Amino acid sequence: MKKNMLIAQSGGPTAVINSGVVGAFTAAMDLKFDNIYAAYQGIEGVLKKEIIDLKAADRKTVEGLKYTPSAGLGSCRYKMSKDITHPDFEAVFKVFEELEIGYFFYNGGNDSMDTCDKINEYAVKHGIDIKVIGIPKTVDNDLVGTDHCPGFGSAAKYLNTTLQVSAYDCYSYSTPTIIMMETMGRHAGWLAASTACAKYNGEQLVDRIYLPESVFDMDAFLADTEKLFKEKKMVFLTVSEGIKDKNGDFLLSGVSVNDNFGHAQLGGVSEFLKSRIAENITPRTKIINPNIIQRCATHVASATDMEETFNTGYMAVKSAYEGKSGYMVAYERVQNNPYVMNYKLTPLSQVANAEKTIPQEWIIDGKQMTNDIIEYTEPLMKGEVMLRHGNDGLPEFSRLPRKFITL
Amino acid sequence: MKKNMLIAQSGGPTAVINSGVVGAFTAAMDLKFDNIYAAYQGIEGVLKKEIIDLKAADRKTVEGLKYTPSAGLGSCRYKMSKDITHPDFEAVFKVFEELEIGYFFYNGGNDSMDTCDKINEYAVKHGIDIKVIGIPKTVDNDLVGTDHCPGFGSAAKYLNTTLQVSAYDCYSYSTPTIIMMETMGRHAGWLAASTACAKYNGEQLVDRIYLPESVFDMDAFLADTEKLFKEKKMVFLTVSEGIKDKNGDFLLSGVSVNDNFGHAQLGGVSEFLKSRIAENITPRTKIINPNIIQRCATHVASATDMEETFNTGYMAVKSAYEGKSGYMVAYERVQNNPYVMNYKLTPLSQVANAEKTIPQEWIIDGKQMTNDIIEYTEPLMKGEVMLRHGNDGLPEFSRLPRKFITL
Repeated sequence: MKKNMLIAQSGGPTAVINSGVVGAFTAAMDLKFDNIYAAYQGIEGVLKKEIIDLKAADRKTVEGLKYTPSAGLGSCRYKMSKDITHPDFEAVFKVFEELEIGYFFYNGGNDSMDTCDKINEYAVKHGIDIKVIGIPKTVDNDLVGTDHCPGFGSAAKYLNTTLQVSAYDCYSYSTPTIIMMETMGRHAGWLAASTACAKYNGEQLVDRIYLPESVFDMDAFLADTEKLFKEKKMVFLTVSEGIKDKNGDFLLSGVSVNDNFGHAQLGGVSEFLKSRIAENITPRTKIINPNIIQRCATHVASATDMEETFNTGYMAVKSAYEGKSGYMVAYERVQNNPYVMNYKLTPLSQVANAEKTIPQEWIIDGKQMTNDIIEYTEPLMKGEVMLRHGNDGLPEFSRLPRKFITL
Repeated sequence: MKKNMLIAQSGGPTAVINSGVVGAFTAAMDLKFDNIYAAYQGIEGVLKKEIIDLKAADRKTVEGLKYTPSAGLGSCRYKMSKDITHPDFEAVFKVFEELEIGYFFYNGGNDSMDTCDKINEYAVKHGIDIKVIGIPKTVDNDLVGTDHCPGFGSAAKYLNTTLQVSAYDCYSYSTPTIIMMETMGRHAGWLAASTACAKYNGEQLVDRIYLPESVFDMDAFLADTEKLFKEKKMVFLTVSEGIKDKNGDFLLSGVSVNDNFGHAQLGGVSEFLKSRIAENITPRTKIINPNIIQRCATHVASATDMEETFNTGYMAVKSAYEGKSGYMVAYERVQNNPYVMNYKLTPLSQVANAEKTIPQEWIIDGKQMTNDIIEYTEPLMKGEVMLRHGNDGLPEFSRLPRKFITL
């Protein structure tokens, strides 16, 4: 049997997601795989037979993906059925057969790990000899069975760096101001919580952090913000896009649109809160909403995150080659000071469709954090990545040509 | 007479504004000035007698300001009267006398250069021997009498870098999307125009750039955007916060609030346009609004801009020491390839209250740019700045203690 592998990416990208692909590619080269294929735009690329031959591609371009933001193989939000008798599965395996794929790797978040799990289940059920391993990624950091998720450290570094520079901007004036940062995170507030790391003048910068894990009460929020504003003049707030009221509804649920996975498309919570603050407290609120940039700012990536992510890809291929299947590569933290991290394999069935939220004991009164989140996040943000820059003063990235093999 | 100098900063900060202060400090040390004073928060600090002794401060802290965002001496938006018989002027000169100031440097934009000009005029009129030099800064790049402004190159680098990483995020999906970046720039669209530099896959990324220099027509905007969206699927737009309709009114003038200088407080134009696009074309618009971050992102600063800014400060002190007064340090571009730039002195009276806008011949049909802006901007973005980072993975900045001398 040929040593052929196929890899694909899915879901929202991260600043270092491609480092995992390059790690997998490197392992496959080291292990002398016959063919290293990538599907363009996730499982959709498999179904459409849009397959790129990574071994035939320019080596420098492939390796340059490590320092390139967002999904270098293209991404999708196509949701595979949970029922493996759905014709999509047969279609996927038909392509696997044509390509003589013995190893399949899917690089994504919760939904992708679910797809990965189902593909493994299908293979087992039909006695098909294919090893399936998931390579995790998500800035949301909400995958279970792993200490943290590839991509989170870089997003946290981006948000905290952004907050720190903005603090210098705001504190250079004496005008009382409320500064509100909105972060990603639908159901888990890891990114919002991570902003507890930001410092100004040696002290914690952010005064309040509002998370999906806590019930958001508008009256309490306004009363607390007004009190802080009177006391401190300069108030820093972080709100997760996913904050919910006591009924569990998103704050902006009235105006939400659903995406293909049935997730509410959020955003704009900070603008809404700004208008409420303007009505009740002060018109002086400045909003920092990094939007998609928090998940693709490779120029502010964490070197630790980038290296760990590379290793997830490398280990995925190595483990599959050693006969493992139905797992996701995961992190196990040994200690913080100095930071030591081990790699392990977590069964995909444990990961699929579950969400890891912030432990309740890390949250104080629904709006502040214990030091746990700081100790947890700091090691993941360590180290800077220098990107190659062109003659125009701007970063140079790698782009894989959309050149598909003939099937 | 003592060789005493006083320096202060005013207006909206930049990512490299403090580099000018460190340049001035370095020159004053080299020229063996007796005392190097800074007023805290601009001319207000002079009036309030909040004076910091920079020579007495920790040298590493002062020099570390070079790599610290935003006004390290504090900033203000206090507008001095244009009438030099106003009591503020007498008060300012009384403090100068107490401190035996022979040299005064004001680091700011248009309004600060006006203040600087008036202070010089007062000195000349009353036969007071004090040399006054302006040190320019503004991300808006709208000062006349200089090729470009300190701070602009770094802001342009930040915006273009942000656009380039976001392009990789957006193009990783096949979902048709409109991406709209909102930039600063009230009356001059230099920052918006600079985004013509951003590239994806070797081609210009941004399709349309809307500037204060052109009349904004909503119907034409919607028609053009719809056409682009149908043709290209992925559409990148840049809008300046200061876009105006045919009557010269800001697009959001109905909801604007005035600041102390009589400027309309803008922002939110992109959200407004997004809502119009949603009504007429598609709900899929992603907004990138870097807000204050574009003027304080020292972690994405241009090394060229930082060095040039240092030199403006150095040259200000050197020129004053040589007897010059009533000038602003300015840039004169000699050539682009390779980039050569000279420093010169421009009379403050030429700079005060004037605004340099983009040449009309650089604008095509009110919504695209000729190559001129690219050739103009690229050299200013060149070179990366590595910041010192702490054990927490976040940048470490310098903060001058608010320790005032007794007067």
